[in-house]
Amino acid sequence: MSGMSGSSYTETGVDTDLAASAAASLGSILAATASFPDDAGQPMVENGYYASALRLTDELALAVCTDGVGSKLLVAEAMGKYDTVGIDCIAMNVNDLICIGAKPITMVDYVGVEHLDAEVMAAVGRGLVEGARQSSISIPGGETAQLPEMIRGHQPGKGLDLVGTAVGVLPVDRVNCGKDVAPGDVVLGLASSGLHSNGYTLARHALLEKGGLDLAAHHETLGRTVGEEMLEPTRIYVKEAMALWESDVPVKAMLHITGDGLLNLTRVKSKVGWCLDTLPEPPAVFRLVQELGAVDIAEMYRVFNMGIGFCVVVAPQHVEAAQTVLQTAGSESTVIGRAVAEPPETVQLPQHGLTGTGTAFQASSSG
Amino acid sequence: MSGMSGSSYTETGVDTDLAASAAASLGSILAATASFPDDAGQPMVENGYYASALRLTDELALAVCTDGVGSKLLVAEAMGKYDTVGIDCIAMNVNDLICIGAKPITMVDYVGVEHLDAEVMAAVGRGLVEGARQSSISIPGGETAQLPEMIRGHQPGKGLDLVGTAVGVLPVDRVNCGKDVAPGDVVLGLASSGLHSNGYTLARHALLEKGGLDLAAHHETLGRTVGEEMLEPTRIYVKEAMALWESDVPVKAMLHITGDGLLNLTRVKSKVGWCLDTLPEPPAVFRLVQELGAVDIAEMYRVFNMGIGFCVVVAPQHVEAAQTVLQTAGSESTVIGRAVAEPPETVQLPQHGLTGTGTAFQASSSG
Repeated sequence: MSGMSGSSYTETGVDTDLAASAAASLGSILAATASFPDDAGQPMVENGYYASALRLTDELALAVCTDGVGSKLLVAEAMGKYDTVGIDCIAMNVNDLICIGAKPITMVDYVGVEHLDAEVMAAVGRGLVEGARQSSISIPGGETAQLPEMIRGHQPGKGLDLVGTAVGVLPVDRVNCGKDVAPGDVVLGLASSGLHSNGYTLARHALLEKGGLDLAAHHETLGRTVGEEMLEPTRIYVKEAMALWESDVPVKAMLHITGDGLLNLTRVKSKVGWCLDTLPEPPAVFRLVQELGAVDIAEMYRVFNMGIGFCVVVAPQHVEAAQTVLQTAGSESTVIGRAVAEPPETVQLPQHGLTGTGTAFQASSSG
Repeated sequence: MSGMSGSSYTETGVDTDLAASAAASLGSILAATASFPDDAGQPMVENGYYASALRLTDELALAVCTDGVGSKLLVAEAMGKYDTVGIDCIAMNVNDLICIGAKPITMVDYVGVEHLDAEVMAAVGRGLVEGARQSSISIPGGETAQLPEMIRGHQPGKGLDLVGTAVGVLPVDRVNCGKDVAPGDVVLGLASSGLHSNGYTLARHALLEKGGLDLAAHHETLGRTVGEEMLEPTRIYVKEAMALWESDVPVKAMLHITGDGLLNLTRVKSKVGWCLDTLPEPPAVFRLVQELGAVDIAEMYRVFNMGIGFCVVVAPQHVEAAQTVLQTAGSESTVIGRAVAEPPETVQLPQHGLTGTGTAFQASSSG
């Protein structure tokens, strides 16, 4: 529950519960389409997991997912700096694809603009190219739509929306929804690069409105300007996933920590709960959002990644091998907790006295 | 060239030349990504054709494309009727996919909203289900984003953007960019259901602003209300394409008539021009837009499909067989013209004294 006098996401105009409910309702309406394809195209993954998988042949499955950069684009607009949001667009999609075991191969972009600006488009393009390079994917096409009556930004004419749809492939037997996760399995956390691309409405409210910070001003705690911190591109974890698949380390689940923060762990399709009792100290930007916005710690863990951008779940006997593979791929990982038998579909954060289910954390009854 | 006193697309705030140039510039920046995938994922179709094809295996290619409903959504908003725009969203994508020879298998949707409205979302969902049924595809997932600062409509809180990304598969040897089209090949035109999903900024300007028509009013020429006419869903041509592939009729090219109207014919990757000398009379809605908006006929043919929603190009000796297959699939087709040797990349409309290249028609020098 968020503090009465502090900021919460709902107060900022984004109702995440309503969003979840409306999206779920749309999802259940669209479930009727599963039977429409006559051969290829039937879904292999339950709705609501990170990406969809469809059987293409006896051996090969296709994976597809779509996500946008959201209101982080308003920071790019305010900074007049558009050359990194393309990385975010790709990261938000390829990091979802790898969760189900798919190797990303391509992405198409949708750019909706209030008015076309060739320099902005070129900068967006440079970020997309960099994200594609980091993910080893092609961007063979996309759609640019001028919609002056439908897209807006903060400054007149500057409206921009950026969405991607990524496609990957995987062997049919690698489709992974975390069904094999068992109590005792260990959660390895990979560091995020900062806010990534979630929670920007709350972060902007806390840092810029309540906190009165200037995007262009150097901030001592952050060691750079507020705008630089807020535009830090989302980390891409494709190389790490590829390295694990190429190794002989069995991966029980991979989880991209997006909206709903560490509650993303409850997405796994096995009846376990999670006890994350060795979380690292969140990076400075999160502490700053919390302080300046007077945001309740439960709300912080509900909205933000709090320093953990991606989780890999492995059996205890494979922890060391997994960490070695990840390190070789360029990523340090830390043990942040483990799967537990009870209570199921719950994330306990004992260091913070929090227990989370669904889309909210609250004070633990036995905190 | 558009009439000085009439409406043109640029005057309505949508600069299609600028859009084409900015999109082309983004496309050329993104072309660098073609070399990033290490195996699967390399593009097989030249950029700028209807959809992208990527080689998956020696036999199988993947096709992907993305498109949105655009400002037709503002008509849905004004009518408070959202249960058909989902059909448009699917049509605009699957009709593009089939042009390169791909069988659509799945689509994911992106719904960006100013504020979530469960009833609107359910109606959008019903249209998507109907479009999926007509196309035999699944919709296994999607993204719904609440972006109150980035999405707007005409009425406060009603902003909605709807975009789809469709994926299809095809045998590697069916990838078709029209490379085999030769002078003398015949263009079969399939009727559109009306405006489809292009040119709505100009259509709204002509009918509602200049013409002063009321969306809710019955219009004698149209035989229904203006709003019903404007919301008529885009026709889906998947069944027709499937029937042709299953027949033994060799198809030289398939062309979805979208923005740029019949100039879409110049997309084929062979050095031919087009002489369309037996075009049918455009349906009433186009004549009404032209009259009420005082829109030049060149601008009409540049922006709208003018009654032809899809073209199939076949050799002269296959015309009859192709028409029989299309008829069996439920579509009448008419011969609207043929490919010619000279001038290349040009569309001649002798009935209207127009010649088109690039993205514009103008009065023919020998009209």
